[in-house]
Amino acid sequence: MPMLKDPSVKYRAFPQVNLPNRQWPSRTLTKAPRWLSTDLRDGNQSLPDPMSISEKKLYFAKLVEVGFKEIEVAFPSASQVDFDFTRFAVETAPDDVSIQVLSPCRPELIKRTVESLRGAKRATVHIYLATSDCFRNVVFGLTKEESKALAVKCTELVRSLTKDDPTQQGTIWDFEFSPETFSDTNSDYAIEVCEAVKNAWEPTEDHKIIFNLPATVEMATPNIYADQVEYFATNISEREKICISLHPHNDRGCSVAAAELAQLAGADRVEGCLFGNGERTGNVDLVTLALNLYTQGVTPKLDFSDINSVIDVVEKCNKIPVHARAPYGGSLVVCAFSGSHQDAIKKGFSAHEKKLLEAKEQKKSHVHWEMPYLPLDPADIGRTYEAIIRVNSQSGKGGSAWVILRNLELDLPRGLQVAYSKVVQERAEVKGQELTNEELCDLFIKEYFIDYQGDDKVEGQTYKLIDYSISTPSKGTKQINAEIQIKDEIVKIEGKGNGQLSAFNDALSKYLNINLNVKHYHEHSLGVESSAKAATYIEVTLSNNKTRWGVGVHEDVSQASFLSLISILNGLHRNGDI
Amino acid sequence: MPMLKDPSVKYRAFPQVNLPNRQWPSRTLTKAPRWLSTDLRDGNQSLPDPMSISEKKLYFAKLVEVGFKEIEVAFPSASQVDFDFTRFAVETAPDDVSIQVLSPCRPELIKRTVESLRGAKRATVHIYLATSDCFRNVVFGLTKEESKALAVKCTELVRSLTKDDPTQQGTIWDFEFSPETFSDTNSDYAIEVCEAVKNAWEPTEDHKIIFNLPATVEMATPNIYADQVEYFATNISEREKICISLHPHNDRGCSVAAAELAQLAGADRVEGCLFGNGERTGNVDLVTLALNLYTQGVTPKLDFSDINSVIDVVEKCNKIPVHARAPYGGSLVVCAFSGSHQDAIKKGFSAHEKKLLEAKEQKKSHVHWEMPYLPLDPADIGRTYEAIIRVNSQSGKGGSAWVILRNLELDLPRGLQVAYSKVVQERAEVKGQELTNEELCDLFIKEYFIDYQGDDKVEGQTYKLIDYSISTPSKGTKQINAEIQIKDEIVKIEGKGNGQLSAFNDALSKYLNINLNVKHYHEHSLGVESSAKAATYIEVTLSNNKTRWGVGVHEDVSQASFLSLISILNGLHRNGDI
Repeated sequence: MPMLKDPSVKYRAFPQVNLPNRQWPSRTLTKAPRWLSTDLRDGNQSLPDPMSISEKKLYFAKLVEVGFKEIEVAFPSASQVDFDFTRFAVETAPDDVSIQVLSPCRPELIKRTVESLRGAKRATVHIYLATSDCFRNVVFGLTKEESKALAVKCTELVRSLTKDDPTQQGTIWDFEFSPETFSDTNSDYAIEVCEAVKNAWEPTEDHKIIFNLPATVEMATPNIYADQVEYFATNISEREKICISLHPHNDRGCSVAAAELAQLAGADRVEGCLFGNGERTGNVDLVTLALNLYTQGVTPKLDFSDINSVIDVVEKCNKIPVHARAPYGGSLVVCAFSGSHQDAIKKGFSAHEKKLLEAKEQKKSHVHWEMPYLPLDPADIGRTYEAIIRVNSQSGKGGSAWVILRNLELDLPRGLQVAYSKVVQERAEVKGQELTNEELCDLFIKEYFIDYQGDDKVEGQTYKLIDYSISTPSKGTKQINAEIQIKDEIVKIEGKGNGQLSAFNDALSKYLNINLNVKHYHEHSLGVESSAKAATYIEVTLSNNKTRWGVGVHEDVSQASFLSLISILNGLHRNGDI
Repeated sequence: MPMLKDPSVKYRAFPQVNLPNRQWPSRTLTKAPRWLSTDLRDGNQSLPDPMSISEKKLYFAKLVEVGFKEIEVAFPSASQVDFDFTRFAVETAPDDVSIQVLSPCRPELIKRTVESLRGAKRATVHIYLATSDCFRNVVFGLTKEESKALAVKCTELVRSLTKDDPTQQGTIWDFEFSPETFSDTNSDYAIEVCEAVKNAWEPTEDHKIIFNLPATVEMATPNIYADQVEYFATNISEREKICISLHPHNDRGCSVAAAELAQLAGADRVEGCLFGNGERTGNVDLVTLALNLYTQGVTPKLDFSDINSVIDVVEKCNKIPVHARAPYGGSLVVCAFSGSHQDAIKKGFSAHEKKLLEAKEQKKSHVHWEMPYLPLDPADIGRTYEAIIRVNSQSGKGGSAWVILRNLELDLPRGLQVAYSKVVQERAEVKGQELTNEELCDLFIKEYFIDYQGDDKVEGQTYKLIDYSISTPSKGTKQINAEIQIKDEIVKIEGKGNGQLSAFNDALSKYLNINLNVKHYHEHSLGVESSAKAATYIEVTLSNNKTRWGVGVHEDVSQASFLSLISILNGLHRNGDI
């Protein structure tokens, strides 16, 4: 059966919400919501291979470490494993962490559920009931009145078993009610049920009731969900006694947007999973939501300073990999392969380092992050700069230059970047895939015949500098007497010039009968810690207008410049130009 | 370096757009945009292992097959591979497909770029220029005036090389300009540059200019991007001569939302990649956008009837797997593991099939899709129902009952579902992971000692029906004379009752001195194609109030019911109850 030419015979557009005085699009997020992790419940129930008890314990410890204060751990009435794990969580949770468990609106299951929480410091009983037409009619066969009555009855039961039970006074009890699936429920009916539940629970301003408004299935564009939440938030009574919680799923790929827009619309709390695990397309991804806040300057109250350790736990327990392109955490997210991107990031880091130096002088500890292509400083979440730029045949000069800079401390001048990028591109096309940093460095050293280690081992060289002495025959004139090796023969050469380099060039030109016209000359010391060495970069033009770059590295800057010319000779020889 | 306690020292909230008369939140999506696939350009450039030429050809063919009419194929001035592939695309594209290529605003590169398109039926030259402060200042070092002048100069160059060139009149030329990164550019300046470019190109209502508004990096909540697009769309002159294109990236996980809200805000065209490939977190996912439209009853103009074949090509060429939870395409998306979800989907399918039958009677070909947890009928994109429900230790009765129904054609009564789900749960906990459909069926057959194949091979049975005869000694009374085997011994039994089953029960009860009180009896034929067989399900209560279900399958419905009682005896024996 193919896709329908006119899908309107089978699918309907989700209706608009009547919200004439809509406020949320003009608001900005200014604080973190209360977070609830449902990784161990909604996440776990959707795994092909659910977590073992030891994996659940590992995951729970990580959630606590990251900073979650509300953790839904299980569906304790559903299985002994879930019940037992709830007991573990109750017995080991820090005092400020509330253990939340889920139950349907069925009295015998609610009793078993509350039992699992006995002795907790803080606990949240979460019950849900079908309120949407689809679920009420198709799945449960209850009228609207029957559903409401059942919600009230079950709320009363939870109340009698928890905050009204004299033996349960050692626990701080929270109560959460979910009209399911809120996003597909008539808003007025959802409010009607919640009003009745609120009256049954009797929350206070200090101890709010949690109304969770699940988009159990994402059914419309995220602005509609925000409208529904704003409608709920503005029409429910005693708003100050209510915590509005969101529980978005990702069927249309918009769960993060839905959670953000619905917070603008007034929600106080978000339920989700790390990296968006959960039924079908998953629950909303709390890592993305938290770091989205962070990059807007808002404290997220969750700590992903070491995001790799979080990824490790999530992948080990869920047995589903975090996608390479997952926001913030994905392996390819702090990479740039395109040449123009790499170039821009390289320039951005230079500008940022300059700003940091200026700030230091002004005794400021931070500067604003303004970096092409990178909305978050990878270092803030424990990822490294070095991994940012990776090079393939699509990459331009910036990427490989960056790799050479970070690995060899050689800061290539622009013209050399261009020349070397062609070498890289050819090699990458031959290889057919990404070049590693090691390959890029090795290729550079061989291309320019560099004695980088200073051990006199340079592969494939025809020309080699053996020794030299400098004298000053007259004011403003330098003379060089040098020994160079050409293949197996050692020859003595001499030349004059107004400087050492021009003297050496003169000596070479005369002996070899060529004209090396120096077009560009650059030099720098090798980083702060390697100040004993210098690097020189020379570009020459030949009489036939061909150009060639050479690179020399040596403790002595003059010798480094001589080595650049030797590098050029070796390159010309290999290419058959001399 | 850990995450900052107060990130506002380093990161700023993205500013609001001044849009007092905002319209988009009240609109609904009613038609598909023009789609541009940039899989072969923006997608390919971000791959650790870029596509080979043969992979690019395979991918291109799939894009055409799916229905793309605009395909960005390369950055032809960047490499010979890209240039050559552009030539291939130009020479092989169907007449109604426009080949698009990208170039920066550099005259020599633009010339090479246009050269790559010579002879095309339809072609789009796409040039981009940095307009954001960050990119202008940090990366390019151009003033606002210089940038605008460069944009105009390059537009004039493209014009002279394409639609104004007498030798290029065989091609229908489109022109696209991207102010980069639009989402981070002052909106008035973006409009100013685009006005100048528009004047240089001179578009018409019939032949619009494409202004692409890239969120090169996603920098704010998606409502802000929609505001920016609405501001642009309402303030640019000659709107009727402009096609507004979107190019959202996914850094904050909101690219799909951004594309949808910005279409509400007036955009006409969307650029992206299949399953969201592209730099860092990827470009917006066009599969999700298209199928999101479809599930709202809007023809998407892209055909994903065979989504698995699309996934195959994407994964082969990109060498990045589609995530298990990717909307629509992910392997886990049409699965449900939770018992309540499985139960609801099973009920939903029953209700849907009933509606389909009613519609058939009324000679309607379609009914509206209203299915718990499944916003799209998996069959519409070539996925199967059978794969929907998978069973693990978290699953309840509905899931395994569904599997038994689809595989064995046995429609278990509710009480038997509950009983069997406990057996499944125990087995799943022992196994520690998902049970396969085969395991679930095998477990069921063994648990209830069913001779499903009719080959008389039932593992582990103690009791066996050998033969029987029925007589009617008086009106309303049936007598049975049966031979049963108990272990190795064959015994003759006889009993009476007001029906055959009660007579057989009487015979068993007397001989074995037990009381099997029949509590539930269900029967049905086995599907349409297996109408020769019947299944019976019987639950009995013992004198100690224990209950036990039995299942019998046979061509003769009476014998099937006797076999249900034999099934019960075998079960009781194995459990040590008799």
